[in-house]
Amino acid sequence: MSLQGYSLPRTPEARASIVPRPPWHYVGDFLLIEYWADPDAVRAVLPDRLDPHPDAGRCAAIFGDWQTCDDGGDQLLDPSRSQYKEFFIVVNALLDGEEVTTCPYTWVDRDFALVRGWIQGFPKKLGTIEMTRHFGLDCRADPGIRTGAAYGATCGANNRRLATASITLEERTDSGPTHNDPPLVNVRHFPRLEAGRHDEPAVHELVRARSRDRSLSDIWTGSATLELHTAPSEEHAALAPVRIGRGYRYTFAYTIDDLQTVAEL
Amino acid sequence: MSLQGYSLPRTPEARASIVPRPPWHYVGDFLLIEYWADPDAVRAVLPDRLDPHPDAGRCAAIFGDWQTCDDGGDQLLDPSRSQYKEFFIVVNALLDGEEVTTCPYTWVDRDFALVRGWIQGFPKKLGTIEMTRHFGLDCRADPGIRTGAAYGATCGANNRRLATASITLEERTDSGPTHNDPPLVNVRHFPRLEAGRHDEPAVHELVRARSRDRSLSDIWTGSATLELHTAPSEEHAALAPVRIGRGYRYTFAYTIDDLQTVAEL
Amino acid sequence: MSLQGYSLPRTPEARASIVPRPPWHYVGDFLLIEYWADPDAVRAVLPDRLDPHPDAGRCAAIFGDWQTCDDGGDQLLDPSRSQYKEFFIVVNALLDGEEVTTCPYTWVDRDFALVRGWIQGFPKKLGTIEMTRHFGLDCRADPGIRTGAAYGATCGANNRRLATASITLEERTDSGPTHNDPPLVNVRHFPRLEAGRHDEPAVHELVRARSRDRSLSDIWTGSATLELHTAPSEEHAALAPVRIGRGYRYTFAYTIDDLQTVAEL
Amino acid sequence: MSLQGYSLPRTPEARASIVPRPPWHYVGDFLLIEYWADPDAVRAVLPDRLDPHPDAGRCAAIFGDWQTCDDGGDQLLDPSRSQYKEFFIVVNALLDGEEVTTCPYTWVDRDFALVRGWIQGFPKKLGTIEMTRHFGLDCRADPGIRTGAAYGATCGANNRRLATASITLEERTDSGPTHNDPPLVNVRHFPRLEAGRHDEPAVHELVRARSRDRSLSDIWTGSATLELHTAPSEEHAALAPVRIGRGYRYTFAYTIDDLQTVAEL
Repeated sequence: MSLQGYSLPRTPEARASIVPRPPWHYVGDFLLIEYWADPDAVRAVLPDRLDPHPDAGRCAAIFGDWQTCDDGGDQLLDPSRSQYKEFFIVVNALLDGEEVTTCPYTWVDRDFALVRGWIQGFPKKLGTIEMTRHFGLDCRADPGIRTGAAYGATCGANNRRLATASITLEERTDSGPTHNDPPLVNVRHFPRLEAGRHDEPAVHELVRARSRDRSLSDIWTGSATLELHTAPSEEHAALAPVRIGRGYRYTFAYTIDDLQTVAEL
Repeated sequence: MSLQGYSLPRTPEARASIVPRPPWHYVGDFLLIEYWADPDAVRAVLPDRLDPHPDAGRCAAIFGDWQTCDDGGDQLLDPSRSQYKEFFIVVNALLDGEEVTTCPYTWVDRDFALVRGWIQGFPKKLGTIEMTRHFGLDCRADPGIRTGAAYGATCGANNRRLATASITLEERTDSGPTHNDPPLVNVRHFPRLEAGRHDEPAVHELVRARSRDRSLSDIWTGSATLELHTAPSEEHAALAPVRIGRGYRYTFAYTIDDLQTVAEL
Repeated sequence: MSLQGYSLPRTPEARASIVPRPPWHYVGDFLLIEYWADPDAVRAVLPDRLDPHPDAGRCAAIFGDWQTCDDGGDQLLDPSRSQYKEFFIVVNALLDGEEVTTCPYTWVDRDFALVRGWIQGFPKKLGTIEMTRHFGLDCRADPGIRTGAAYGATCGANNRRLATASITLEERTDSGPTHNDPPLVNVRHFPRLEAGRHDEPAVHELVRARSRDRSLSDIWTGSATLELHTAPSEEHAALAPVRIGRGYRYTFAYTIDDLQTVAEL
Repeated sequence: MSLQGYSLPRTPEARASIVPRPPWHYVGDFLLIEYWADPDAVRAVLPDRLDPHPDAGRCAAIFGDWQTCDDGGDQLLDPSRSQYKEFFIVVNALLDGEEVTTCPYTWVDRDFALVRGWIQGFPKKLGTIEMTRHFGLDCRADPGIRTGAAYGATCGANNRRLATASITLEERTDSGPTHNDPPLVNVRHFPRLEAGRHDEPAVHELVRARSRDRSLSDIWTGSATLELHTAPSEEHAALAPVRIGRGYRYTFAYTIDDLQTVAEL
């Protein structure tokens, strides 16, 4: 392989790859809503090998406002290449009896995040994600991190709203969210285009996410709202909440440079 | 006036105005670079009534990452309507011998910010503005607020880069930037379209900005870089730096609901 | 006035104005749907001086895919500065007994089109507008201009869908749409920000559009659908159709460099 | 595989896949510039198995304004899902002595086009692509298809301009462009993330494009300009023109549902 680079485009100098070589370092602000969807709808999005979780219908809806870079870190000074926003849903399941999560739907707003997600088995599409921010000044335009502070988040794609959420902070908590806690298991999938083989993907494998160097801010929790809106080319609204639990706000960082292949499917 | 609303569209319920009724509350993170441009280029962008500043060529280039709302504050939960980013340049001048600043060029990334700027005399266009952020976690993807932390910022419009800047933090300072400190004096200008009267604007007046309820974070200062790039439909690059001073990073909040008309021009 | 330019930013070389000096030349493809809204809702959006049209509730919804330039025409080679898409609604009314139209709501996707609209009295906001195109080749991805060809159009803003429409062509027609035919009368409005004077706009005048050098392609007509979707910061859905008439597809060009002031309001 | 769909996300109803099942039908307007780059720079972007073309440095730069759909065709009525713009470069080479082309760099402005490109071996990134259009009316804002008509095109990404081009039409031609004529050979590449195996992509294979049901409009040719601009995370400017040939404008349609695997690399 004379051309260089971890991902396309592979080039003479390896400077142009849409996704740089791992490790990938991340930090982000998060709004997370624990909820339960219709158990049949959750079962319907489980990949092969996953079984329904005993707490039927358990889900989390997560909005993230990320900054990311590689070991060189050059992206941090050119924020078009280091910042992105994301909305994703995880559902809870069992893999060989072990509690896991899996991500059936996710949207990001940058190309590098979309392709990096595909490499990890996240089914990323492009969307527009917006989240209320705090700035650390006590003023009218800043909700602050305090009891009663309200945060909103939205996700849209293809000129439609797909999700609307809000969290009203109540108190700092030592125990964070649990609906997103089990290991994440996704399906890496890369199609084939040869005539007659469209149903034989080139890559179709169950993978388990790995990460390291995790750090976490204070966590605040409170009440939450969540709506998932229907769209002709989307199916996420089948996972609309039938019961909403707690909302959480926190900042989180980690590093990714590994992935465990569980099984060829 | 049976229709309601501070700005167009004026409607039955006054919910649709692109700019809501003042007061407008703001908070934002800022990267500011003090510099000097060619004195002739600065003189050439001064509106009538303004004279050159004795410190010839004194300018500031400012990147802002804003959140804003009105008294109702509904926009905060729908961040498409409360967040925007901005790049602007201010040049220093004298008005009747008093030190002032004026803004010849500015770009924002939302419609409400563009029109609100026009109401205040800011010559806003749409652009894409990006700024490195900090998240408050000690990790690889977060520069942090500490000696050596590097922040980048870019502005583009019409598929071109217009400005590239960076600041490397050195120390906390009790004395903030001065190039943007004098009162801001702009020209409110609203054209006329009647044939034969294209050179008789309907509004053409020198105005002085007013604000209240200002608050400010810690200020960090450091070294800075700044490039202004030429473009066929832009003239800001004539204000490219001939000497660069200090860079500053801080968070700032204020409220605006007033403006002083200095003179019809 | 030492600084040059028809609109802000006014500059040494007059190259940077967001809206160039008139005349403005336009050409565009259009999808137009004639319909009737609730008559009370139409009456509620009429500016002072306009009376309800005898054909109560008569409206048109119009999607336009535009290219535009000034006399110099430089914008045509830099399409970021010459192309934009638009969705707008016109309602029918009477001015001193004469049939007119007025535009209560409109969205465009470029800054120069937004500000140019304000100069003409159009209450433009930014949105994302999409329209099916034809390319003149007989193939699966091109609906063509023929009986049965289906065209769709959508408008969204702030991460929400605001309008969805479609037209299925039936036949070429010598008689074009009529709901948009009467002269267009709008309100030029430019707010004031001085404390205590927020309800005294600096400009608030009824104006009548003027244009010249109009040309028109063949017109096709057919059946149509139209939905206007509610949104917290929009009121256009009050003008949702109670009855839908015919849809039209055509290409149109004209030049604008004049406007008649009807009355100060 | 209980979940349905040709590409991620794979879902219960197969409505949400970012790329629908082939066949994919395309139509688009094109501006193509034949040129020659530095032969060493062209050689440096050839994948394994490809040899330099005897006409050293032969390239084409192509801007496309596309509409696309699957057999169902629902995307045509929801243009966010059927339209995209593209800029790509092809270089000429030999495969086992046969003339071929390969695409080292390409940008599109929609997610479905990006992922569909990866499936075909195109190294697509997101960009903003703009092209002058013609509308078929004889007017100032429409260059028309006639001698002297000038068309511009630009591509940008990450807040920077990457390419600027123009074509001035001279005459209709029966012989179209040749620099893009040979079969297209690309590298399908899908990385692996397991620690220690980052240099062992899961898919890395030389493929030859196949298409059918091709149709073509009249072709116009003329003089052309082309600039490729440097950027920190791009390498395409190494293929900047050392000599520029003819420009072409045409409309083209085809259908894709097949691909030939030439070799595992």
